[in-house]
Amino acid sequence: MQIPEILLVESEHRPGSLGRILTAIGECGVVIDHLTAVSRNQDKTVWEITIEIDPGISTLLDERLASLPNARLIGKSDRVFDRHRGGKIEMVAKVPLDSLQQLRDLYTPGVARVCLAIQKNPEALWDYTNYGNSVGIVTNGTAILGLGAVGAQAGLPVMEGKSMIYSRMVGISGIPILINETDPGRIVDHVSAIADSFAAIHLEDISAPACFEITEALANRLAKPVLHDDQQGTAVVTLAALLSAAREVGQNLHEAVIGQIGLGAAGIGIGRLLLRYGIRELWGTDLRPEAMAQLTALGGRPALIPELMRAADIVITTTGVKNLISRDQIRPGQIIFALSNPEPEISAREALAAGARFATDGRSVNNALGFPGLFRGALDARAHVFSDAMLLAASHRLADLSPPHEILPDVLNPAVHAAVAEAVAKAARSGDGATPL
Amino acid sequence: MQIPEILLVESEHRPGSLGRILTAIGECGVVIDHLTAVSRNQDKTVWEITIEIDPGISTLLDERLASLPNARLIGKSDRVFDRHRGGKIEMVAKVPLDSLQQLRDLYTPGVARVCLAIQKNPEALWDYTNYGNSVGIVTNGTAILGLGAVGAQAGLPVMEGKSMIYSRMVGISGIPILINETDPGRIVDHVSAIADSFAAIHLEDISAPACFEITEALANRLAKPVLHDDQQGTAVVTLAALLSAAREVGQNLHEAVIGQIGLGAAGIGIGRLLLRYGIRELWGTDLRPEAMAQLTALGGRPALIPELMRAADIVITTTGVKNLISRDQIRPGQIIFALSNPEPEISAREALAAGARFATDGRSVNNALGFPGLFRGALDARAHVFSDAMLLAASHRLADLSPPHEILPDVLNPAVHAAVAEAVAKAARSGDGATPL
Repeated sequence: MQIPEILLVESEHRPGSLGRILTAIGECGVVIDHLTAVSRNQDKTVWEITIEIDPGISTLLDERLASLPNARLIGKSDRVFDRHRGGKIEMVAKVPLDSLQQLRDLYTPGVARVCLAIQKNPEALWDYTNYGNSVGIVTNGTAILGLGAVGAQAGLPVMEGKSMIYSRMVGISGIPILINETDPGRIVDHVSAIADSFAAIHLEDISAPACFEITEALANRLAKPVLHDDQQGTAVVTLAALLSAAREVGQNLHEAVIGQIGLGAAGIGIGRLLLRYGIRELWGTDLRPEAMAQLTALGGRPALIPELMRAADIVITTTGVKNLISRDQIRPGQIIFALSNPEPEISAREALAAGARFATDGRSVNNALGFPGLFRGALDARAHVFSDAMLLAASHRLADLSPPHEILPDVLNPAVHAAVAEAVAKAARSGDGATPL
Repeated sequence: MQIPEILLVESEHRPGSLGRILTAIGECGVVIDHLTAVSRNQDKTVWEITIEIDPGISTLLDERLASLPNARLIGKSDRVFDRHRGGKIEMVAKVPLDSLQQLRDLYTPGVARVCLAIQKNPEALWDYTNYGNSVGIVTNGTAILGLGAVGAQAGLPVMEGKSMIYSRMVGISGIPILINETDPGRIVDHVSAIADSFAAIHLEDISAPACFEITEALANRLAKPVLHDDQQGTAVVTLAALLSAAREVGQNLHEAVIGQIGLGAAGIGIGRLLLRYGIRELWGTDLRPEAMAQLTALGGRPALIPELMRAADIVITTTGVKNLISRDQIRPGQIIFALSNPEPEISAREALAAGARFATDGRSVNNALGFPGLFRGALDARAHVFSDAMLLAASHRLADLSPPHEILPDVLNPAVHAAVAEAVAKAARSGDGATPL
């Protein structure tokens, strides 16, 4: 897969020199992600150029830059690592602790009164501790990003990333829990044993098919909201983007045939939510027979890629396979969601050139728009489950918040997440809340 | 047990009225813990009076106050509960998140580089995540304070109290983990399964004898520092106080006979550390035969209370039994540490009146002086165990930091904890680190 890299390139301060550098990078097939000047004197400028690059062609790029007459690759910046130094999150006291009286109220002996109040009325846990604001972010490291089973500890930066977004966007305490286990039954036992620590459980980056069994078992066993972000979180954001796209091009979703290519965690999560939304014709395909059986059980229709591409008004791909779809497979007028990250099954540009009415890729469907509002809303309502109504409410609200001609709202706007949370909490309060995922 | 309560009493603003209120409280056998005026007009003052009271005599006190001519009990303040509202801790982002570039460095796609760096070199976990600053505070709620087995969730305010002290004193992220399980083997399995989340494990308020098996098994199984605060943490602070007291009265500890009454978690923890310190004559007693056997295995000498009280130069009691020791059992010249909280086996006042050379109780031996520096030092040294050398270094440093005529330093002084951490880290770095507890 491609990984981001930051080049530090010194150029002579004269017309055309930056253009030549960027052209050279482009000739290696590499896209510029970001560019800033980090220092400048009379003669020269040092540029920080953020790119995404396949590690395999890094040497080629270095040689290409070395051959330029008026530029010099002076190093690779550690900006990503600098920003990660010491970690991204921390547990802190939110009360002052300056006097012995405070200590005696907040710790022994005063704390004993609070313990007794909770023993007498367990609901008081929500009032006098951070419990009701805490979400366990649980992974076993078997499907970290697109990197695969790199292990739970190597996945910790991703879990801290989720926690950081929780903190900044909705004020939730997201607690990374790394489980050194792959057996689904034992994972369920371990998570159940510590579930009293958190008001809700956010499962993250657990590989399919184990993730289905684990999510369902925990949602049924625990009297608290449980979701697997790669399934339900991604599904909520994808449905929101689809609602926006359908609105943009005037497609009635209820009359559409939707075809899904790839039925892993994301694909099954999306398919299930589309059916709950009311999609009548959902076709799907995957290399694994058990995934096809799972789709059938949900109410979808197994198909092969050629017939699916011919029949579908809307195509959603979540295969992880770069360039899986060729231009000639696109039917004019189709809506294409090629969601694999970092490289889609077909680029939006190519899909549009082949006649698609609308096309987008995984970068535009940011999963971080889902989980903060979903969990904030569930906690605000003190919900015991994530119901379909809550997930659908989040999708509708996200679509409603999308600016004209865009499919989703700004991921870094806390007001967006607050609005999603409000819709989710309302759905939780008005629903019977009896149906786990 | 006694619990703190806060009375709001209105008195007429004239000479003697406050004195009469406090006298009335005293006549109920209740000690004043703290007193402040919360409002005052021309005629009247409202006093906030913090007391510790047995719930059984609360009605008696109310009636007594109601009988006073110039005062009125207007209510009971919720100061303790007010201070607990919303909890005492939270997980927060410690990096800014205002731009898409920051998001792309700290979350996908940039975070993938950090994941790969950790996969390649696991030690990088310490540099680029909060792992190396994280301690799991694990309880199953079977011995919360002196309240007993009130359950892990009712114990959460205590765990948050520990986390609050970690945060304010040494900047550690203390993560409460509540385990719904009493079987020692299964607790060890659950903690081991999630131990990758934390650089060290702080076991808290787990009842004896299960705590011994759990602590030993985890310390042996995990390649990281593990301690049970009720055992080792209390032992470190008690030994420090004993070193100070011995210095104060000129007692050579190595020549002393030390007698312990009560061999639960605290008693066994203290006994073990005293023997590692080099105490040659350690006598001990407990109602449970297995506790006596445990003492013998450690190298101590089982005894009965009468002979122990006659032989001991220093008596340490950790029984939880109020007024267990009578005045006539005290041998003149003894050093008495009656450590049960909130009510000691004999008050320091009575022990001194009976001829003790030195006496103190559990309030003066604050356990919160131990764990912050112990864990900060262990993390700073990236230690894999808590060795005896580390525990003893903490005790010596605490004794050295105690002001003249006091047995321990100020618990709310971060410099004290930093100095303890420095001593612990030094011991960890110079030791072979090969011997878990």
